[in-house]
Amino acid sequence: MEFAMKALVYQGPGAKAWEDVPRPEPVADSDAIVRVDATTICGTDLHILKGDVPALVEGRILGHEAVGTVAHVGVAVRNVAVGDRVLVSCVSACGACRFCRNGRYGQCTGGGGWILGNEIDGTQAEYVRVPFADNSTYAVPPGVSDEELLMLADILPTGFEVGVLNGHVQPGDVVAVVGAGPVGLSAISGTRLFGPSLVVAIDTSPARLDAAKQFGADILVNNSEQDPIAAVRDLTDGLGADVAIEAVGVPATFELAVDLVRPTGRVANIGVHGKPVTLHLERLWSRDLTITTGLVDTSSMPILLRLLATGRLNARRFVTHRFDFGEFIQAYDTFSNARETGALKVLLSRS
Amino acid sequence: MEFAMKALVYQGPGAKAWEDVPRPEPVADSDAIVRVDATTICGTDLHILKGDVPALVEGRILGHEAVGTVAHVGVAVRNVAVGDRVLVSCVSACGACRFCRNGRYGQCTGGGGWILGNEIDGTQAEYVRVPFADNSTYAVPPGVSDEELLMLADILPTGFEVGVLNGHVQPGDVVAVVGAGPVGLSAISGTRLFGPSLVVAIDTSPARLDAAKQFGADILVNNSEQDPIAAVRDLTDGLGADVAIEAVGVPATFELAVDLVRPTGRVANIGVHGKPVTLHLERLWSRDLTITTGLVDTSSMPILLRLLATGRLNARRFVTHRFDFGEFIQAYDTFSNARETGALKVLLSRS
Amino acid sequence: MEFAMKALVYQGPGAKAWEDVPRPEPVADSDAIVRVDATTICGTDLHILKGDVPALVEGRILGHEAVGTVAHVGVAVRNVAVGDRVLVSCVSACGACRFCRNGRYGQCTGGGGWILGNEIDGTQAEYVRVPFADNSTYAVPPGVSDEELLMLADILPTGFEVGVLNGHVQPGDVVAVVGAGPVGLSAISGTRLFGPSLVVAIDTSPARLDAAKQFGADILVNNSEQDPIAAVRDLTDGLGADVAIEAVGVPATFELAVDLVRPTGRVANIGVHGKPVTLHLERLWSRDLTITTGLVDTSSMPILLRLLATGRLNARRFVTHRFDFGEFIQAYDTFSNARETGALKVLLSRS
Amino acid sequence: MEFAMKALVYQGPGAKAWEDVPRPEPVADSDAIVRVDATTICGTDLHILKGDVPALVEGRILGHEAVGTVAHVGVAVRNVAVGDRVLVSCVSACGACRFCRNGRYGQCTGGGGWILGNEIDGTQAEYVRVPFADNSTYAVPPGVSDEELLMLADILPTGFEVGVLNGHVQPGDVVAVVGAGPVGLSAISGTRLFGPSLVVAIDTSPARLDAAKQFGADILVNNSEQDPIAAVRDLTDGLGADVAIEAVGVPATFELAVDLVRPTGRVANIGVHGKPVTLHLERLWSRDLTITTGLVDTSSMPILLRLLATGRLNARRFVTHRFDFGEFIQAYDTFSNARETGALKVLLSRS
Repeated sequence: MEFAMKALVYQGPGAKAWEDVPRPEPVADSDAIVRVDATTICGTDLHILKGDVPALVEGRILGHEAVGTVAHVGVAVRNVAVGDRVLVSCVSACGACRFCRNGRYGQCTGGGGWILGNEIDGTQAEYVRVPFADNSTYAVPPGVSDEELLMLADILPTGFEVGVLNGHVQPGDVVAVVGAGPVGLSAISGTRLFGPSLVVAIDTSPARLDAAKQFGADILVNNSEQDPIAAVRDLTDGLGADVAIEAVGVPATFELAVDLVRPTGRVANIGVHGKPVTLHLERLWSRDLTITTGLVDTSSMPILLRLLATGRLNARRFVTHRFDFGEFIQAYDTFSNARETGALKVLLSRS
Repeated sequence: MEFAMKALVYQGPGAKAWEDVPRPEPVADSDAIVRVDATTICGTDLHILKGDVPALVEGRILGHEAVGTVAHVGVAVRNVAVGDRVLVSCVSACGACRFCRNGRYGQCTGGGGWILGNEIDGTQAEYVRVPFADNSTYAVPPGVSDEELLMLADILPTGFEVGVLNGHVQPGDVVAVVGAGPVGLSAISGTRLFGPSLVVAIDTSPARLDAAKQFGADILVNNSEQDPIAAVRDLTDGLGADVAIEAVGVPATFELAVDLVRPTGRVANIGVHGKPVTLHLERLWSRDLTITTGLVDTSSMPILLRLLATGRLNARRFVTHRFDFGEFIQAYDTFSNARETGALKVLLSRS
Repeated sequence: MEFAMKALVYQGPGAKAWEDVPRPEPVADSDAIVRVDATTICGTDLHILKGDVPALVEGRILGHEAVGTVAHVGVAVRNVAVGDRVLVSCVSACGACRFCRNGRYGQCTGGGGWILGNEIDGTQAEYVRVPFADNSTYAVPPGVSDEELLMLADILPTGFEVGVLNGHVQPGDVVAVVGAGPVGLSAISGTRLFGPSLVVAIDTSPARLDAAKQFGADILVNNSEQDPIAAVRDLTDGLGADVAIEAVGVPATFELAVDLVRPTGRVANIGVHGKPVTLHLERLWSRDLTITTGLVDTSSMPILLRLLATGRLNARRFVTHRFDFGEFIQAYDTFSNARETGALKVLLSRS
Repeated sequence: MEFAMKALVYQGPGAKAWEDVPRPEPVADSDAIVRVDATTICGTDLHILKGDVPALVEGRILGHEAVGTVAHVGVAVRNVAVGDRVLVSCVSACGACRFCRNGRYGQCTGGGGWILGNEIDGTQAEYVRVPFADNSTYAVPPGVSDEELLMLADILPTGFEVGVLNGHVQPGDVVAVVGAGPVGLSAISGTRLFGPSLVVAIDTSPARLDAAKQFGADILVNNSEQDPIAAVRDLTDGLGADVAIEAVGVPATFELAVDLVRPTGRVANIGVHGKPVTLHLERLWSRDLTITTGLVDTSSMPILLRLLATGRLNARRFVTHRFDFGEFIQAYDTFSNARETGALKVLLSRS
């Protein structure tokens, strides 16, 4: 089988395998085929493996983050050429629908959005088909490694756009970040770009709080030991934080985030929720709150690439473990046991 | 009793009387005493009479809206003089706290906020003490009647600030307003200032929907007869409204408002809620929603006064019934039976 | 010559002819060929004929506004099909460059921008080649006539984006528009979408001031008879306008616009200037002014189309004269003698 | 003369003296009298001494920056008490006019604005009368020294508000700062709060460029040796900077700033200009520029105070020389010969 390749294939709840599959073929003239040089695993992939995304069919190749080399482009592709080294965004963008024209690629109604490793085969493979390649890949600036670049495929824009920009962080703000996993740490990194006066990280894991400190948190609150609301009020003359960013995805942390902010404060939800939450409008109606939800657009990619290229964004520190493509199952084990392994992001590279 | 006056006094849940009380005395140097020439009744006053605002003590004079004539000013008052005709804002502002400096007078921590007819005696009286008079009263532009001016004391800025500005209404938007009572109608009036393509009014009362049409709604949806979500989707290629403004204050209408908007849409809650609501983050987390709550600041007063003075805002149409001060009980009856009487706002004037 | 057509060809300064030329052929896969059903003449075309745009070569077909029917699409075109009725924007957009991704199509560095009737052949012809058709044409909403639609190809978005949005017009504002030609009238139309308290039109032509009144100006100032600065100060307690929009393009009107605004005011330049202007920073440095310049992006097209479709924007009133394609020279005469003919926009239709 | 004090008195162009004058008396109920503990000299003071501010009368006490201790408050002062340690803002604010209500204190029409050391006696004295004390002084956070605090009286908010906020600096931006004197350095400090990708400092003085590096510039361009436009284009793929901040105040540097930015770029003028400048609209009309001017409002004081208190803003590095009140003439000499002395800001303290 000449055009075979290896890929990480979803085989129903709880099951996956690194196995031989056909190499992807172009479908549309705007497609590119990208040889994957490095990929990683996202918390969402773990959700998928638990069976939480029922739409996902067996046989689907997982993964939505990649750095690679363009192997083929369709006739309609203008800005990407064979041989180009590119970052593949977790979000594909048709570039022409109402949402794409406003930079809201995550809501693309023209066939894009988060489709890689979800509605179509993904990036945890030797090759991947990338639809709308002109709008879904990014040229790599010189001097940037695969490893740090890969952190821009999903996690850093997610923290920056859905946490920091939605939360409208401004210089001088006190910002509380609930959850110091990879996405919460991205939000902390992104918050630092806006000159906050204090960043408060809230988590129950001492290891993650340590990581939060490395990523720029000023104050660490272990909320299995300490009341985070009281802690934040103590820091803010009793008022509360200017912004709270939710990066966990369960009702308790969302409701905590809402309670952490002062009147006129902003709550930016990043967490992927599986259940409804309660919003206490009987006491919140008059507090001038702004609450946002969001899926990443990766519209901030040009900004983040510039910051990476000039050394103003340290993306490398996310990568705690490195594997070859042949070690995919081991990489998943390491990433899914983060409490024991201390994994933040695991890198998988073509050997 | 030379310095007595008449006032509408709260006498515990369900009870009120228009009775003799002492005329207010200045307390602080920044106070003014205003002779009330016209006042009105707010939906919140009905809530208070039901006993929903437990902090409100018996003996309190109700009301937080007034147009009047300045009878006295303290030594620290610089911009208001005895004899001036002024609009009294429902929100008092210390002018110096963190919130006031940002125009968020509703959240004033310096002793202001919504205190009239709540924490201190209110405007349903022959005279009222207005704290922080420099920042809590507004000079009346020439050619504007008491009647129309009075609509700016609370209702029009509430619809404009908490509904339209919080909802970030923009030209071309499709805006759904849930609830066509006085505040919903204010939101419709305010929405028209921003060039929407369609304003959809949703209510169960045919009379209120008729009013909504007068105030500028393009599409009327009686949601006791018709599915408002389907109606709005039909108007928007299946996407939903750009903005939904909630002007009722119960869980069902809030949840409706959330379901009415498209991805990237905005939900502005104006309703005064007595119960928590459910937020379906399990399907909303990825829809890029913005949800706001708010108490009016009346920071838009200068804008609204200019629009009133140049005839660009029709405030008079709110007033459906007119009474003398001696008819206060009758005015409350008319206002609280709005379904039968068709009352929007009732005017009470010094005879 | 089977594939010949008629077109209005530039023949050097002062010279033009409606003559036989070859029908355009597709060049790129993202091109469409559009049969022009209606077109119009822009003030810029007159500048070109005077020889003010030296880059423009002899033999170029003029025109950058059209409504038409798609006759051909390249293989890379996804959202436009043969037979579609479309609006052709005056600005073409590659859709992928840094500027296009931010909706700044006018600054496109990927081969778009204002190229029609400038760098490539234009729309004053029976057929036109439209590059990047997916991003440079707009589907026509039902119920909208060619005539009104055509006003969205350039003039209405120019007034709205470069005048009103750049000028950040807000409800209650006093807005002065300097110049009541077609673009100034577009700015007045667009200003009305934002609920201004007063729109002041300033021009030296009584006919144009009359037109300004029809388009929504509240106050007319003939600045050959009256001092416009004094007039605006009289309306604004001596402060000046909130926003001044320059729609002429000579130093005197720009400097007037700057002098018309209050401290913290905004000056939006739309005029196409041929000479430098003087900015009196020795008195302006401390006045908190914002001055903007701009080329239209037509990024507001979806908004304007919605407003047109719902009857909230009256575009038809721009069209004062109607011609067949065979009467192109006569149409230019009428348009270029606007002072005598009263022409605002002239319509040229396929008969 | 019991209530005498020493002060630096303007004696006409070129002349000044540290001499005995009467101690200031309260004039209005909203005044405070502040004992000056530390003050400094501003570039504007040098302009005044040259006679550039003709309105300034002989006998006026100079200076508009101070940290001190409240010695007296009028009856209308609510938020400041005798004995409080306060920062005196260079801008006084009535707190009630249209501009103050929007935080535009620099444009106050109620008797405030930049009046200290200009329209009324200033801070280069043992005592100063501060009008509208509630809105014109700021409580000092614990742990902040007089020296660093004093940098917030004028210079840091000027760079931040008039340069960085007006220039709308955003993460990832390339920002060019023209002029690396104290105000330019403040703009560089403020720019760093918004996560730029590159800050380019442009000056003709090697010493000032060295200082710029200390304050956070990434790239230094000596424009007596190197073409700054070419240098910035090289860093930006030929496009130009996202933002240029002018901090000199002569025509050449303003015109340079305009030429430094890319299409859609922003130019924020801070410089105090004495002459008109030329704006080349014949090539700028289509470049989508935004140009701003401004006088500081010090509305960002709460933000800057929080950043100072949490160690996120290093204000101390501005102070290069320290003097006693008795050494005022020497301090002026040092400051006015900055090229030789290397002075950035000089501190004058009560001994």
